Amino acid sequence: MACNVAILGFGTVGSGVAEVLDMNKDSITAKTGKEIAVKYILDIRDFPGSPYESLITHDADQVFNDPDISIVVETIGGAKIAYEFTKRALSAGKSVVTSNKELVSTHGVELLKIASDNNCSYLYEAAVGGGIPIIRPLYKCLAANKIVKIAGIVNGTTNYILSQMKDEGISYEDALAQAQANGFAEANPAADVDGIDAQRKLSILSTIALNGSYVAPDGINTEGISKLTLDDIEFEKEIDCALKLIAYFSNNGEGKPSVYVAPHYVSRKNLLGSVDGVFNAIMVEGNALGESLYYGQGAGMLPTASAVCSDVLEASVTDGVPAEIRLWSEKAADIESYGEIKCDIIVRLDGRADQALALFADYEASKLSGNAILVKGIRHKDIEGILEGESDSKWFHYLG
Amino acid sequence: MACNVAILGFGTVGSGVAEVLDMNKDSITAKTGKEIAVKYILDIRDFPGSPYESLITHDADQVFNDPDISIVVETIGGAKIAYEFTKRALSAGKSVVTSNKELVSTHGVELLKIASDNNCSYLYEAAVGGGIPIIRPLYKCLAANKIVKIAGIVNGTTNYILSQMKDEGISYEDALAQAQANGFAEANPAADVDGIDAQRKLSILSTIALNGSYVAPDGINTEGISKLTLDDIEFEKEIDCALKLIAYFSNNGEGKPSVYVAPHYVSRKNLLGSVDGVFNAIMVEGNALGESLYYGQGAGMLPTASAVCSDVLEASVTDGVPAEIRLWSEKAADIESYGEIKCDIIVRLDGRADQALALFADYEASKLSGNAILVKGIRHKDIEGILEGESDSKWFHYLG
Repeated sequence: MACNVAILGFGTVGSGVAEVLDMNKDSITAKTGKEIAVKYILDIRDFPGSPYESLITHDADQVFNDPDISIVVETIGGAKIAYEFTKRALSAGKSVVTSNKELVSTHGVELLKIASDNNCSYLYEAAVGGGIPIIRPLYKCLAANKIVKIAGIVNGTTNYILSQMKDEGISYEDALAQAQANGFAEANPAADVDGIDAQRKLSILSTIALNGSYVAPDGINTEGISKLTLDDIEFEKEIDCALKLIAYFSNNGEGKPSVYVAPHYVSRKNLLGSVDGVFNAIMVEGNALGESLYYGQGAGMLPTASAVCSDVLEASVTDGVPAEIRLWSEKAADIESYGEIKCDIIVRLDGRADQALALFADYEASKLSGNAILVKGIRHKDIEGILEGESDSKWFHYLG
Repeated sequence: MACNVAILGFGTVGSGVAEVLDMNKDSITAKTGKEIAVKYILDIRDFPGSPYESLITHDADQVFNDPDISIVVETIGGAKIAYEFTKRALSAGKSVVTSNKELVSTHGVELLKIASDNNCSYLYEAAVGGGIPIIRPLYKCLAANKIVKIAGIVNGTTNYILSQMKDEGISYEDALAQAQANGFAEANPAADVDGIDAQRKLSILSTIALNGSYVAPDGINTEGISKLTLDDIEFEKEIDCALKLIAYFSNNGEGKPSVYVAPHYVSRKNLLGSVDGVFNAIMVEGNALGESLYYGQGAGMLPTASAVCSDVLEASVTDGVPAEIRLWSEKAADIESYGEIKCDIIVRLDGRADQALALFADYEASKLSGNAILVKGIRHKDIEGILEGESDSKWFHYLG
């Protein structure tokens, strides 16, 4: 029995999908009991000389009107054409597998509903953490838990830049240029360095953690890494931390869920503090399980294709039975406003740690060095007021 | 709609299952669309005063003959009564969820077949890594990969003992006594300290990694931790490693798969080297994904119950559709004999590292300190011969 797949968008991930399905054809056939064959690759470009040249089509109708196609892989990216094509495929009862975090985080509510209405699947394991299993562990393996906390390094580009600043002792600008030269950052790096990519991924993780109560990306307060200096990076040694861009979710039962993206000084005692380079890692705490961590390659051709292809296998096995659909609610989640969120912070007042302690006397605070203190459980809105007038003061989120 | 569950064996994990199903009742009902209710708890003991006292029964027939029971949780342990009860439940078309690594590793081939024949499920996520999602990630999220390597810290008791020896500077015997006093080791610790528990878990992981080709536990060469000295532990600082009991699987396409359990010096650059105390972590390398790592609490009441309960949810959702069944083959996997397995080792000849280099001149070897060298790609059977006559020589496996 054959299962025919169409790949939409033959870029890095799309071509990786074709390669992985070829490379592991025998074991995939053995596992699923059917041959999974790529029948079309839809792209506006030609790929002369590619081994997949004969599968390239520019005709979307050919793909969507072919009843032989039961699974569509959407690796176009963005939320325009990809959105139209995904709706069209799902409406035709074809399961869609995607790595597109922008689309899932923006239109997941609608697309999952269309899939459910048409008895097919919309699977997005690859949208967060690249190849790292995180979506399925979160909503299936931890299904019996309430998700209390998520803290993730979910953007490889920014983690690479921060690691390079540390290892090479170079500025943010130089590290970014290096990342671009090495293909780890795009010519326009805004979506990565401004934290937008992390925001989209956190939107997806938070929505699942809240059982489908939708956390829209644009409602998540987000701070990127572009203002970080080499001095900030080098300071991490003094307090035995590593500076990381963290996507943070907390729902500990006290008040509304907290959701934000920001640089954090992460304690070296936390495994997240040892995750360097383009790697991603996500810590998930369940109320029964306690803390768990998922680590691996969060981007790249084959790692991301690994997750996409595993979803293709899932869709092929459950063909006609829309497994793995858990709808997202149209009602937006009621998350805490950023100012009201309580957090732990590192306050740096060089040479004046004791003075800093005095400033935060109303809080649980402790001295880390002559230059910095740790303050626990302070509301975002209260921080700036206390530090007002303290020239050269700086503060950062802290993750223990 | 209700889904009735029977728990067999009301020990640590069994009582944790009842507690988690209670504690998260609302969210579980919301997720599954049905109320999951414990109807019976089968145990030879009474539990006067327990909130679950009224559910206790001593009558197995009552459980197995009740058509209302669709899911049976087997948390008895061992491979005798648990084996009989599991066969009986599956034969009656009741899905069975278990944390019993001994039973799954010994009789998995037969029990999965009985489940399949009776259109129900036999789920064992909790049998390896306690609450850590590993079974489902391995065979579902990495389904499009060939599994190239697994290296796991899968036994919390031994990891706790090794961590205590390091942190407290105490002997193996004292650390074991401490672990027993703290409830982390049993009165008869043999299954843990001799590596048998790790062997069973590795049997399960290897069988899945080989697409169901069965790797029996008693075919896995296994060395425990009872011969390790405080000197061995303290030596790890000199070579920037951590001594860990590693369950190891490799199938890199060169020859037959390698499978064994042994203490390893793990490089501090490897995340596994930072996993201390009762925590577990499992590194899995797929040929598309590359390396990934899964970390969390590998034992304990609520963490293990977390995995069991998530499988219960899975069984309740797929009621009547035996999802998640991938049969194991009756034909045993053809794994490499221990002597023929090539491995990386640390050889210690105190004060005579150069002499050690000369002994292993035919191999890729490098000096780590004045006392130790690293030798790569040597067959187990060749090691002892080379070291014969070298008094005070010691060797250990190495994981980079």
